[in-house]
Amino acid sequence: MTTQVVSSIEEMRTHVLLARRGGESVGLVPTMGALHKGHLELIRHAKDECGRTVVTLFVNPAQFNQPSDLDAYPRPFDADLEACSSAGVDWLFAPSAEEMYSEKPLTFVDVEGLSDGLCGPYRPGHFRAVATVCAKLFAAAPADRAYFGEKDYQQLAIIRRMVRDLNFPLEIVGVPTVREPDGLAMSSRNVRLSPAERQTAAVLYRALEAAQSSDQTASRVLVSIARHVIASEPLARVEYIEIVDRDTLAPVVTVDRECRLALAVWFGKVRLIDNIAIIPR
Amino acid sequence: MTTQVVSSIEEMRTHVLLARRGGESVGLVPTMGALHKGHLELIRHAKDECGRTVVTLFVNPAQFNQPSDLDAYPRPFDADLEACSSAGVDWLFAPSAEEMYSEKPLTFVDVEGLSDGLCGPYRPGHFRAVATVCAKLFAAAPADRAYFGEKDYQQLAIIRRMVRDLNFPLEIVGVPTVREPDGLAMSSRNVRLSPAERQTAAVLYRALEAAQSSDQTASRVLVSIARHVIASEPLARVEYIEIVDRDTLAPVVTVDRECRLALAVWFGKVRLIDNIAIIPR
Repeated sequence: MTTQVVSSIEEMRTHVLLARRGGESVGLVPTMGALHKGHLELIRHAKDECGRTVVTLFVNPAQFNQPSDLDAYPRPFDADLEACSSAGVDWLFAPSAEEMYSEKPLTFVDVEGLSDGLCGPYRPGHFRAVATVCAKLFAAAPADRAYFGEKDYQQLAIIRRMVRDLNFPLEIVGVPTVREPDGLAMSSRNVRLSPAERQTAAVLYRALEAAQSSDQTASRVLVSIARHVIASEPLARVEYIEIVDRDTLAPVVTVDRECRLALAVWFGKVRLIDNIAIIPR
Repeated sequence: MTTQVVSSIEEMRTHVLLARRGGESVGLVPTMGALHKGHLELIRHAKDECGRTVVTLFVNPAQFNQPSDLDAYPRPFDADLEACSSAGVDWLFAPSAEEMYSEKPLTFVDVEGLSDGLCGPYRPGHFRAVATVCAKLFAAAPADRAYFGEKDYQQLAIIRRMVRDLNFPLEIVGVPTVREPDGLAMSSRNVRLSPAERQTAAVLYRALEAAQSSDQTASRVLVSIARHVIASEPLARVEYIEIVDRDTLAPVVTVDRECRLALAVWFGKVRLIDNIAIIPR
């Protein structure tokens, strides 16, 4: 099938509402394009559970902290459209920046608390921009369900909470991270790693697994285990490694309930994030 | 007809969506109850333009700055329901605080710039609470149009902008202020004025009219005209009198386009607001 490209908010909304009025459920997969196997897994879940699927492709300028990161963000539109067609996506919603921000925006959605830790301090304004653009996308494509990867765990928790707090009528579905054979989490930023960095980056998953398989319960110790694994690779520069509550993302001293170990690590000019469940034995 | 009282968000949404799927348009009139002629005018506009009408009644604790003001806010539920029935309202959506805030909210909608001036500095957090609860109400009762009075002019401008910025699929309709015969703007707070304060409060409209009918164009002069009229009443204590751009609410030095003169004035323990168009000749 051929995926239909839609660039107008009004037109996108009409497609979704007509499908739903016709009795079909609609699944939404928000992306910034450069689709990889992680996105395809989100699409697969959406297609399994919904009659129609929308992928949104919008590289949201507001959520980038550095212009260089925005400029370097890959934009392989033709390949993305082809991937959507092959995956049986009904609509690829690809609005221009002018369509999404026809005037300088004054309205912002903040999810307090959940945005404060982990990546928050290192990416000021990022989660505000993510929450705001997701609110806009949910209004433009009012689907039954929206699919987000667990790789961006803090984003997933924030969007879940926003939807609950604002009573938005859709379900947020978290999908487990898809990994390369060596364990590296799929990410659109992986293509920017040098061959040496790419090889080294697999250390992240080894670090997550080492902490997960430990029988220690002190966060300090578990973080130290992960940190030591990463320290074995001189190309890796740790930004943070933290253990937080699964839902509130509040720092945890002892793992006495299901938690999440999350980290951000730089390889050269590329910042990668990953996370894993830490479950008490 | 008898207005149906609805207390559940889910049920309210279902009523609205079923009506719209049946081809009817739905008008929404958000209120905090204590319905007066100003609200009835909003309802009249909604009924003129829409097939079905929802009035929401929610005294939002988050938007009060003083617990005493929240406690003193009138809550004549039976009279409100009767007024809705007489006016031909289909649904009165009256959720409990628990239904609207089932957990401590972390998500907030801010409309920057528009919230900064006029009442903003005197009511910290008020407009954030108003914008957030309106986003929630629009999700609970996804109507075609929502009706707000021009009496709360800053609120109207903020909600208009939020809806535009977040692409919410509804039209915001501003309705001219309804006044008592002596010019006092209808407000649920008027009942809290003492007889002497009530008589005095008519000075606000005289002040607005004096400025509006002047041929001066300097804001400083127009504000001074209004201020002098109010100064004639010793019971009145001015909080602010300002002239701002009609849309951006930015302060204006010279009235060279349509502006708004807005004021907040205390009478004893009651704070009243009002505003009027100032149009260059």
